[in-house]
Amino acid sequence: MSDAVKLIEVKEDIQADNERVARELRARLAARKTFLLNVMSGPGAGKTSTILRTVEALRGRLRFGVLEADIESTVDAERVAACGIRAVQLRTGGLCHLDATMVAQGLDALGLDGLDVVVIENVGNLVCPAEFDTGAMRSVMLLSVPEGDDKPLKYPLMFSVSDVLLVNKIDYLGLSDFDIAALRERVLKLNPRIRIFEISAKTGQGIREWADWLGGEVESFVEAGARTVRA
Amino acid sequence: MSDAVKLIEVKEDIQADNERVARELRARLAARKTFLLNVMSGPGAGKTSTILRTVEALRGRLRFGVLEADIESTVDAERVAACGIRAVQLRTGGLCHLDATMVAQGLDALGLDGLDVVVIENVGNLVCPAEFDTGAMRSVMLLSVPEGDDKPLKYPLMFSVSDVLLVNKIDYLGLSDFDIAALRERVLKLNPRIRIFEISAKTGQGIREWADWLGGEVESFVEAGARTVRA
Repeated sequence: MSDAVKLIEVKEDIQADNERVARELRARLAARKTFLLNVMSGPGAGKTSTILRTVEALRGRLRFGVLEADIESTVDAERVAACGIRAVQLRTGGLCHLDATMVAQGLDALGLDGLDVVVIENVGNLVCPAEFDTGAMRSVMLLSVPEGDDKPLKYPLMFSVSDVLLVNKIDYLGLSDFDIAALRERVLKLNPRIRIFEISAKTGQGIREWADWLGGEVESFVEAGARTVRA
Repeated sequence: MSDAVKLIEVKEDIQADNERVARELRARLAARKTFLLNVMSGPGAGKTSTILRTVEALRGRLRFGVLEADIESTVDAERVAACGIRAVQLRTGGLCHLDATMVAQGLDALGLDGLDVVVIENVGNLVCPAEFDTGAMRSVMLLSVPEGDDKPLKYPLMFSVSDVLLVNKIDYLGLSDFDIAALRERVLKLNPRIRIFEISAKTGQGIREWADWLGGEVESFVEAGARTVRA
């Protein structure tokens, strides 16, 4: 048996365990009406900046906490906390993704009292995080314009498991040969139900539309309780 | 034992096996004087474009072949082959890195006759590829300006294991708050021996200096044979 086959089999066992933990976590959060949002992207696509813009856009409407995942550093959690947002850093110790057990531990450390939404900023990686259910109600991925419009061809699972695609750094559009129509076609072929928003976390462009959509999702979830939660 | 601990232990076993395979591969390539270069980066940093520019800059001096790694697609191998470069696509089937066994299989499929250098384009990922020795003589990482100057803080292993850092999309420098001096300081703190080149695969800026350095490395390797190869 090759190394690759061994690793894949171990991952399958771990994923089965993880799915159970994720389902239990989701049910527990639904019972207390806390919305969990999983944010994923490659490195440097702008997750932290987008989260800060989103929290700002929904200030006074929803109360946010943040779980920051990183291989090593605590820079993102410090940046979020500096904006007055309750935040916990999860260090994965070399692992390239978060699983539901790590998220549950992070939520315990964060404390859920007084929070409507907890945002998970996952490890910057377009591969592994797509394979592990975090227990979130919705998953959002960011793709930034400088990364290129071919990414759905190369990382299809990430686009398939996400409920929302935020095309970030849209202010770079004119500077590159990024074809937004080709991107949309490739993404919708993989995932016809995905919502796509064009944003710039730097200039604020498009943040209002995305934040309004998220606010609506959270409020529907709170009103309907567990009915809107994925099985 | 938690899932994470299980996965880490399995990875350690696999890495020990991989290191043996990588050493054997490196010795075999040294004996036949074929230089193997491992190119790593996050998604969309410009690996393929940089490889094409590098091959073009060294045309007539060195003969290149390319192993393209991807989770699913064959778009990069097709793009490279369209430029008249011998190329093989390796599909990792969901794995987030290449190991030395996969590289050896790719080299068998590519064939080494008439090639001075084989470039491995690793999976677009700043985490997993850093953990697996591919058997290459040198490892190069790309960081593109839009990804941000904080990446050494977040993905230190990748910067530590690389012999060269190519800071790509340097033409974007004036458009962002990317601090190149801060980047250099962070990178050199992790890895004082790393070579840093600022390039733009789009405009060609800096490619000559990088390609000349690489050409010199390959020629020293060919002249000295196995003496320049890492233990």
